Parts: sequence; structure tokens; C-alpha cells
Amino acid sequence: MRDTPCLVVDADVLEANLSAMAEHARARGLALRPHAKTHKSLDIARHQLAHGAVGLTVATVAEAEVFAAGGFDDLFIAYPIWAEGPRAERLRALTTLARVRVGADSVESVRMLAAAVHAGRRAAGSASDRADSTPLAIAVEVDSGHHRSGCAPDRAAEVAAAARDARLAVDGVFTFPGHSYGLGAGDDAARDEAAALTIARDALTAAGIPCPIVSGGSTPSAHAADQGVLTELRPGVYALGDAQQWELGSCDPASIALWALATVVSRREGIVVLDAGSKMLGADRPGWTTGFGRVLDAPEARIVALSEHHATISLPVGMDAPAVGTRMRVAPNHVCSAVNLADALVIERAGVETGTWSVSARGANT
Amino acid sequence: MRDTPCLVVDADVLEANLSAMAEHARARGLALRPHAKTHKSLDIARHQLAHGAVGLTVATVAEAEVFAAGGFDDLFIAYPIWAEGPRAERLRALTTLARVRVGADSVESVRMLAAAVHAGRRAAGSASDRADSTPLAIAVEVDSGHHRSGCAPDRAAEVAAAARDARLAVDGVFTFPGHSYGLGAGDDAARDEAAALTIARDALTAAGIPCPIVSGGSTPSAHAADQGVLTELRPGVYALGDAQQWELGSCDPASIALWALATVVSRREGIVVLDAGSKMLGADRPGWTTGFGRVLDAPEARIVALSEHHATISLPVGMDAPAVGTRMRVAPNHVCSAVNLADALVIERAGVETGTWSVSARGANT
Repeated sequence: MRDTPCLVVDADVLEANLSAMAEHARARGLALRPHAKTHKSLDIARHQLAHGAVGLTVATVAEAEVFAAGGFDDLFIAYPIWAEGPRAERLRALTTLARVRVGADSVESVRMLAAAVHAGRRAAGSASDRADSTPLAIAVEVDSGHHRSGCAPDRAAEVAAAARDARLAVDGVFTFPGHSYGLGAGDDAARDEAAALTIARDALTAAGIPCPIVSGGSTPSAHAADQGVLTELRPGVYALGDAQQWELGSCDPASIALWALATVVSRREGIVVLDAGSKMLGADRPGWTTGFGRVLDAPEARIVALSEHHATISLPVGMDAPAVGTRMRVAPNHVCSAVNLADALVIERAGVETGTWSVSARGANT
Repeated sequence: MRDTPCLVVDADVLEANLSAMAEHARARGLALRPHAKTHKSLDIARHQLAHGAVGLTVATVAEAEVFAAGGFDDLFIAYPIWAEGPRAERLRALTTLARVRVGADSVESVRMLAAAVHAGRRAAGSASDRADSTPLAIAVEVDSGHHRSGCAPDRAAEVAAAARDARLAVDGVFTFPGHSYGLGAGDDAARDEAAALTIARDALTAAGIPCPIVSGGSTPSAHAADQGVLTELRPGVYALGDAQQWELGSCDPASIALWALATVVSRREGIVVLDAGSKMLGADRPGWTTGFGRVLDAPEARIVALSEHHATISLPVGMDAPAVGTRMRVAPNHVCSAVNLADALVIERAGVETGTWSVSARGANT
């Protein structure tokens, strides 16, 4: 018996999720480069490559370091890295272990990346500094409607040209259609993604800059990814699923492979309090969700309040409050946040614990 | 130069916060038992004891284990612990290292705690099992209006009597007036706290159960803690402060001792994007806050969106967007969540880094 709360992964459900997305990408001729920030696990990443993923996406240099040390040699840091100080040196070291692609959405960040890489090459006394031998490639991030990072699609060539002029390889363009995270928003976000990437790709081509990679994808928009434009998909959450995907309709509850196992510690009429709070589930709570996660064993229940070590569950009318000590499974709203709070995941097959997997890149933020 | 994002603590501001709350408690004749879940740091806890704290409050057995191993011998696990399985054994082991008080809000949980402790005592072959030598004391948790855990105040004697009957020591009663977390709610929450604790204390007394400890307090209600009823205060956040306390009026921005140091990685008209997202700041965002944290270097700016590695900042009219690469300080909404995401805190005095402190109890959830 394990003490609660803890995060549990059903390895069979995970495997089915990996297989389904791999098949989806394969059928559309898209390269699959799953985002490893979701699981931060070398074990899960190995399974993704076994299903045919071409490499991994990560969010930070620190995540890339963990996966490179674990033997992954094709990494895309899909983030506009500012390569100053120790991070510049770390990025150079990383390129000795893996083929590294980095996001950029400004001329300034491209120049900083180039300075970091070329300084290292000069320091190493390399005789060659031709662009085609650069160990670091750039992908230009464009905004497709999420309005986070990313330049306007029609300015992508400007950033790509700066990379070319600074003797960095250019892989192509990418976007994150994060506005797919809204009820019924996935199809429109996929259309926005395709439109923005088309403009960006065509701008690079018009500027004489080849654009072999056109990368997009989020879990809620992956089903509608435009195979006429995209060459690469980067979903992350699909591997494990969560309450948000369930409520968005991107997965059904039976496909949620990760939950927090929690214990009823307090009860009253119509209410139970579980011992999995925001320090286990994460505090993510977009306005369109029905609560702070979902109780897999009581789908009609609602998590109406969440503090650090308490989830307050409002039970459906007619349901007797489970006794204190009862164990229940809770799907976090956002699995990426939950995993990043745990040092290890408990692995089950058919309800039987088979071991644990380390969350190797937990806290790898820098 | 450190890579961003990272959490920084100004040790002088911290010290001033510790001193002010210690003086507040001392002036009112209240014992101060700070909640260590806020900082999870042995270093900060030592400073709190140096300022006169009588012991620590923690939220989990795992946190208690970390602090007991660090030499703290008076611990209150202010949580309705369900002492089953490995946790029962861990609790017994803990009582050999420290004086341990545990919360309970039901007869069932009291009986489980008693079974755990007495099983251990029998196993150890102790000749004495009188209640007054019990290494574990109970405090009855009552609900004062936050409606989380805690029994109704007029039922406190029932839980206390179960503890007495099960040969557990009873320290008294406690509550967490968490409904103090609302604009202007601190004074009313303190009144509710006093009212509930008075009912509970009087119920124990009427049942012939001594009630030496009457414990309450949250940072937003501590200023109004009723010195006529309370004997003990358990605030946590006051040590470090955060954007929520600032917006509640419980601290001013100059008293915020912890921030995330972050870098501008993307910018456009009126907007900058920083590299400190929810995996550094936490995703807490109650409806009464103005955003997902506050930018200490731009108090009028608002954090309008937060994803895992991006904080999207809307700048005030007339403020030029800082250049990519600019570093800015962000106060998280809820410092307890932010600290629990970091392995270490960078310590500064007068803007100069003096070392790091480990977040020793990070992730200690069970």
C-alpha cells in the first residue's frame, strides 16, 4: 500500500495513446515530435521514439540537457531562447550531444544565439565556420492567434534572414496554436495555424530561404492539423491526457493515463475533502473548466475548491459521501503541471503496480 | 550571472518580516508557530525559531519528517491525517524525534491515529500506555467559515472525547480562517475564527477536557487575531509575502522578500513575454487578483496570461516595452506554490547574491 497522494500512470492506456497519435501522424505524412514537457520522463520519451517519433520537443535548455544526457540526439527547444550568460555556454555544450533546433521570434534573439554558438566555435579553434556546419538550427516562431510569443507571420523572413546572415542554419517555421484551449476551439485554431504557417513559409521561400520544416500542433488541434501545410506535429498532453482534454472533447475519460491517487480525509453532507491539493494536481483552472480537475471515480462530482493539500469535492445529488479513508482517483486539469510537481510516477498495468518512473526533468526550467 | 528564471529571496526583507510578526505575536501574548509549508526551508525555519517561534506548523507527515530530521522537535501537522498503511509507521517513527501534534476532525480519524500509535507502542513492548505519556497529541480542527476540512465547532468535544477515550493526549482546538483570502475579508474572518474557537474551546471545557491550545491565524487575518481567545498563531506567507498579500493589503510591495527573476524573451506593442511561467510562479489565480502575479519593476503592468514558460505582461499606457533580454522581478501570486516548484532559493542581501538555500521539503506531499 502506498501513501497518498501520488501520481499513477496506467502504462497500457499510455501505450494506446502513443500508438494512436503515432498512427494519426503517419497516416497524414506528418513527422511526430512530441513535446516532452508533458511527462519529463526518459521512459515515456523512449516509448514515443519506439512508436516512430522523429525526435523530441522541449521547452527549456535544461530539459534538453536532461534528454540529451539520456541519449536523445534530436531535440527542438520550441521556445525563443535568450542565449546570454551561462545559458550560451550550456547551449554550446548541448550541441555536442544532440542535433539542436531552437526557436526565435526576433532579430535580437537570433543575433544572441549566433554570438553564443560562434563564440564557442572560435574558442574551440574550429577551422570551419560555414553556416552549413553550424551545430544549431533556428526555427522562426510565428503567432497564429494565441498571442503569446511568435512574430507576425509576414515578418518571419526577417528573422530567418538574420539567422542566415549570422551563419545559422534555418530549419523553417513553427507555431503553437494555444488558442485551441477553449471549448470547441480546436478546429478554428488548426485553421489559424495553417494560415499563419502558410504565410510564414511563403515569406521564407520568397526570400530565397528554404523552409523544409513547417511545425505546429497542440493536442486539442492535432485532429485537424492541415496536412497540406504542416510537415511536423508537436502535441504533448495526448500521451497522458487530463481533465482539460476530457472537457475539451480531445480525449475520453478512459484515455486518461495519469491520475492522482488521493484519500478522503474529511467529509460532511454532500462534500468530501481529498488529500490531493494544488501541490499535487497543480492550480491550473481556466474559466471554461468545470473545476480544479475531475474525479475519475465520480464523473458527476465537481472539484469546487483546491488548496495546497485539500481538494473540496461537491458530490452529485443522491451520492452518499464516501467514508473517511476511501481512496479516489483524480485527473488533474493540466497534466504538465501535475507531473512537474512529482519526483516519480507510479506505474500500473491492469491495476497492479509494476514500478516507478523518474520525472527526470522535473523543475528543469532554465 | 545566473540563468533565469530563478527564485530570489532578499534576506534582509525576510528578516524584517520575521521580526515584525514575532513582535506582533509577543505583544499580544500569543505563541507563534509559523507554517513552514510556505518556505519548506530549514534555514528560514531556524530564523523563525531565533525570533522566538515556539515550534513549526507543517501540512504533511513528509514535511514533518524533513523538519524533524533537521532538528526541529516541536511540530504541529495541522491537517486531518488519515494514519493508514506506511503513514502510520512513519508517524510513529516521527514521534521518536519530535513532540508531534496532529489535527483531526472526525472520530474515525482519531481512532485510526490511536490504532497507529498504540500498535507501535505495543510492538515496542512499552510497559506504560497511559494517555499522559502518549507521544502524539491531537488538536481538533473546526470550520470557522472557510468550509474546507474541520468539524462544526459545537462537535469539537465529540472528536476530543474520542481521542481521550482512545488514550491520546488532547492539546486543544484549531482552525484555519482561509476565507480571509478575499478583498477586505481579513477582519471578518478573524471574528469568525474567534467565534468558532470560543464555541469549540467551551465545548471541550464543558466535557471536562482541558483545552490549553486555541490555535488560529492566517497571514491576512493575523493583524486582527483575537487575543482574548487565541493562544497560538500559525501564519505562513508573512515570511516571504507575495502578490496576493500585496493585493489583499496584508503587505506592501517593499515587504515582498521573494520574487522570480525573469528575462524578456519576446515583445510587441504594449506587451512583453517573460520566461517565468506557471512552472516557476505557480498557476494560482483567484478571481479577486489582478493577474497571475505582479511585476515588481512595473507595478502598473498586469500579467494577463500565464503558460508553463511564458508570462504575458500587458504594459501600462506610455511605458515602452523593455528590450528582449531585459531582466524583471515578478512576485508570484502565491509564494507557497512557487517555492514548492524550486529546488533552491537564491539568497541576496542588498542586491548581492550571498548563497543559496535548499527547499528541503519541496514535494513532500505525503
